Amino acid sequence: MTPAFELEGETATTHHTNSANNGANDNQIGFKSRVSVIGSGSWGSVAAKLVAFNTLNLSSFHDEVKMWVFEETLQSGEKLTDAINRTNENIKYLPGIKLGKNVIADPDLDNAQEDVHFVYGHDVYIQLKMQTCWFLSPPHQFIDNICKSLVGKVRSDAEAISLIKGMEVKIEGPCLISTYISEQLGINCSVLMGANLANEIAEEKFSEATVGYRNNREIAEQWVQLFTTPYFMVTPVQDVEGVELCGTLKNVVAIAAGFVDGLDMGNNMKAAIIKFGLREMRDFCKLLFSSVKDDTFFESCGVADVITTCFGGRNRKVAEAFAKNGGKRSFDELEAEMLQGQKLQGVPTAREVYEVLRHWGLLELFPLFATVHEICSGCLPPSAIVIYSEKKPRLPV
Amino acid sequence: MTPAFELEGETATTHHTNSANNGANDNQIGFKSRVSVIGSGSWGSVAAKLVAFNTLNLSSFHDEVKMWVFEETLQSGEKLTDAINRTNENIKYLPGIKLGKNVIADPDLDNAQEDVHFVYGHDVYIQLKMQTCWFLSPPHQFIDNICKSLVGKVRSDAEAISLIKGMEVKIEGPCLISTYISEQLGINCSVLMGANLANEIAEEKFSEATVGYRNNREIAEQWVQLFTTPYFMVTPVQDVEGVELCGTLKNVVAIAAGFVDGLDMGNNMKAAIIKFGLREMRDFCKLLFSSVKDDTFFESCGVADVITTCFGGRNRKVAEAFAKNGGKRSFDELEAEMLQGQKLQGVPTAREVYEVLRHWGLLELFPLFATVHEICSGCLPPSAIVIYSEKKPRLPV
Repeated sequence: MTPAFELEGETATTHHTNSANNGANDNQIGFKSRVSVIGSGSWGSVAAKLVAFNTLNLSSFHDEVKMWVFEETLQSGEKLTDAINRTNENIKYLPGIKLGKNVIADPDLDNAQEDVHFVYGHDVYIQLKMQTCWFLSPPHQFIDNICKSLVGKVRSDAEAISLIKGMEVKIEGPCLISTYISEQLGINCSVLMGANLANEIAEEKFSEATVGYRNNREIAEQWVQLFTTPYFMVTPVQDVEGVELCGTLKNVVAIAAGFVDGLDMGNNMKAAIIKFGLREMRDFCKLLFSSVKDDTFFESCGVADVITTCFGGRNRKVAEAFAKNGGKRSFDELEAEMLQGQKLQGVPTAREVYEVLRHWGLLELFPLFATVHEICSGCLPPSAIVIYSEKKPRLPV
Repeated sequence: MTPAFELEGETATTHHTNSANNGANDNQIGFKSRVSVIGSGSWGSVAAKLVAFNTLNLSSFHDEVKMWVFEETLQSGEKLTDAINRTNENIKYLPGIKLGKNVIADPDLDNAQEDVHFVYGHDVYIQLKMQTCWFLSPPHQFIDNICKSLVGKVRSDAEAISLIKGMEVKIEGPCLISTYISEQLGINCSVLMGANLANEIAEEKFSEATVGYRNNREIAEQWVQLFTTPYFMVTPVQDVEGVELCGTLKNVVAIAAGFVDGLDMGNNMKAAIIKFGLREMRDFCKLLFSSVKDDTFFESCGVADVITTCFGGRNRKVAEAFAKNGGKRSFDELEAEMLQGQKLQGVPTAREVYEVLRHWGLLELFPLFATVHEICSGCLPPSAIVIYSEKKPRLPV
């Protein structure tokens, strides 16, 4: 048992010895919830900074925010966690930004699991209702392992929030990451998405986000409270599927926008691509979940995030380079060269979307999504993003 | 009577002598409609080029496209119309772009009026149903005079299309330009708006537009046919008010985006401003016309045009300079210096929108629109586009 994660407040002992209860005692006066961030890329680090700012001021939360870090040895020979804890900066993925003294990096997921009140993983943020919060964050390929290692160790009244962009495609259909986490861990999972480039939030420039929640408005308000800062505006929306899929699908649109930039097709074309992309996003979401609302696409997670990603994100940047090279250098190669270890999300998402649409025989209804995958996989040249017929432009074929 | 505008085809004489009929004979074989563009800024010139490309290939239209030009004397001493007709270029507002040999510049609106089959004006495109087309185009302040001079001289079966961004604010409420044209001339008026920067269309880069029509789908299809080229994609939408107001209101959002650029507030902030702007556009449109459709904002005239204008247009550019100068140099001064005679539309539109909202006591519901006008008019500094309160960001106050 690691003492590092002990609960504060009067009921701590009760919980510690009765970790599988329903949290009925959590509302006692003096009880504090704990927040942990799982994932330590640039976005995970920014999330830790935001939450750590708020836990200091919220009496219902423990000050300390744990950040689970996928351990690496830096060129200097120092461990990444040690460097973070020494400098209070993620010197590899978010250099120059102080995370807050109350952010503590920890490399050991197993350690955390010894105390069932909190869990670490990659890029999801999980809150044990009124008690403990977690954060998983980036490459969704890791989630599977993380969740599996947590099964049976999570309180049933835990609350999670996912910041992960992506979805799992299974034979029976697509599965949202939030749904996967919910199912694997037997807990509720909200999502946070939005127009927020990590480096700009890190510099405390104004940004926004959308919390997508399922039923419980109170939980949504708690997430809003934990993330909101004077420069970070968070809005709750009761449409978890719409919000999450926006965060996923926008990366496919950003790849298309990168192609347009790489081929120097101009602003009109880029705006057209964004518009087509936004419409395909909406139609795809509604195809999967009839509950998805049009209004969601007017939120930060919708149009604003698509714009940010299509003008400033890494998917756009690498896709631009891909198009400039006429598709002759692969995405894997460009990613390794340009992103210093960060991963592109648009390319695997485009493949997943393509699989879903092919499985359902609906590729023709989503020409932009389909074409992006066909270009990424080398079946079509980058210029296929628009093909003009003799009389009537079709975008894209 | 000027012979330059004679109708072609077998029924020409009939129409000429019976210009106030209902056009019942227009469908006779061999009858050709005529297109005239009214207005000769960069966008009017591009429109003439697009239509002239199509009239050459459409058997139901006369090849020749007249462009009414507000006459100017160039530095060389040559008249602008003479220069256009000599070079086949609008050497002042769209230099380097051939308009098509069948575009003929004419300075004399009165001349045109002698033949009641067609009309010139500023920045509107009017088609006499199956017979003659007109185009009025840019600064909507001129429309009043143009329409007044045409009253009583227009066939009742004429069709108009307006490319004008703006609206007239009267004591009884706002009036769309298309409605004003309709009422003044007693004819139907459609609109064409969209994500189309004139210089990019001129270079035949891919662009889009939306035709907003009221009831008659056939008329809408005819406009689509007249404007569509291999690089210009036109989509008809039955929502004339929504489409027209998009084209008008986006310029107010672009002013806000320019402030953000001028103050170097970052991509997240800019995306947030665009999102707020798009939502206020939608809400304002629905407030004025309950028939306005959400879907319209997913068309080229909606999200795509807002993006194009907020990243590439002249409203953004001058607003950026305004903010960089801390609001100390007026828009009039910057406009004169930066736009070579072209006019900003966002500043007067922001004032008109403000008047409407103030008249109805709804300024609080439209903080972005209201703030833009208050900054433009010097009541607030450019930085007021975002004001952070201590705990919760409000955007803008």
